[in-house]
Amino acid sequence: MERLAHVRPPRRQRKGLQTPNPEVRQRLLEAGLELINEGGYNALRIEDIASRAGLSVGTFYLYFEGKSDLFVSLVQDYTRRLRDRLMSAGGRTPTSRLARSLDAYLDFVLENEQAFLHFVRTSGAMQTNMGPLSTWALNSHAGDLEPAMREAVETGTVRRMDPALTSQAIIGLTQHLVVFWLEHKDAYTRAAFKEFLLNFIGYGIAGRTGPDGPG
Amino acid sequence: MERLAHVRPPRRQRKGLQTPNPEVRQRLLEAGLELINEGGYNALRIEDIASRAGLSVGTFYLYFEGKSDLFVSLVQDYTRRLRDRLMSAGGRTPTSRLARSLDAYLDFVLENEQAFLHFVRTSGAMQTNMGPLSTWALNSHAGDLEPAMREAVETGTVRRMDPALTSQAIIGLTQHLVVFWLEHKDAYTRAAFKEFLLNFIGYGIAGRTGPDGPG
Repeated sequence: MERLAHVRPPRRQRKGLQTPNPEVRQRLLEAGLELINEGGYNALRIEDIASRAGLSVGTFYLYFEGKSDLFVSLVQDYTRRLRDRLMSAGGRTPTSRLARSLDAYLDFVLENEQAFLHFVRTSGAMQTNMGPLSTWALNSHAGDLEPAMREAVETGTVRRMDPALTSQAIIGLTQHLVVFWLEHKDAYTRAAFKEFLLNFIGYGIAGRTGPDGPG
Repeated sequence: MERLAHVRPPRRQRKGLQTPNPEVRQRLLEAGLELINEGGYNALRIEDIASRAGLSVGTFYLYFEGKSDLFVSLVQDYTRRLRDRLMSAGGRTPTSRLARSLDAYLDFVLENEQAFLHFVRTSGAMQTNMGPLSTWALNSHAGDLEPAMREAVETGTVRRMDPALTSQAIIGLTQHLVVFWLEHKDAYTRAAFKEFLLNFIGYGIAGRTGPDGPG
């Protein structure tokens, strides 16, 4: 998890606190996330974050440089929590692990819908010391998936294919299609969407399904 | 193609020319695209665009409000050209059409590498009258693909699956994975990357391949 600890905007304009209080920082992050999920990022005001957290605007600026600095920290926090959930999703077979992970991902996204949409739309333009923020986040998830893909290839559970490319394909496809689903929730139920995505990842558009596969 | 003609930033600050010269506009667009592909978007200066086009800075501002306005127009122009190439890629079977389209896409991306990367990373944050610029561009491509997918489902060439979701999946996956490939060109040849992506789209991670499929 070391990479997570170090992602940050390329340079801070002012010195951080000598002895920051992690609980205060967390209260500001949670207030920011709540407000984004309620009203979107563009409407977010520092005054409202401080007020929701029960702190002063001055205190906010001791911890963050502004909205976009807070947002990078939120994405870092958010990615860590999502990774924890995905890693503990369980499942005995690769197929059931994939299905449980997708459920955990959808739960998380639905809890943080506005923040997720804002993240997907803007994080490519947010530079960090690790490159675009979007690249860092997707690589974190793909890196978590890769050992399982490598093992599945080696044991013949899946076809022979490059584990790194396969992990990137699954993560990138899932993120893109979840955004599309959020924008078209009236057209597809969660169950129908989930079934589509699992079948696409599992069998593509032309692959014949195995004995356990869909009809 | 009507949607293409109307995508634009949500409002212009100043009135456009009464009788714009399409050839002058095109020269400015081409100069902008060349300079982005040579040095990236961030280094792009209006002075350099005007100079490359053999025009004055004043003329530039008669046609565009600034860099981001030029960039939205470039993406519009670029998407139109890419769609033309994809639609004329040919191929007698769905599989060969997919392979030829992917080749046309890769050719185009490699000709416009810096502009493509900048587009992918920033177009989600660019609002237009049609929503985020990225959504408009991906929906344009997915909309082009959807009739062929619908026909392939109806004739049984591919599995029974939702044509709209399938088109979004193919377009979103391809864009994401091409960015990853551009960032890792030393790890995968073009041929190896192309084979991976076509097999993933065709057969997923577990699908058994048909008689024509890969071994």
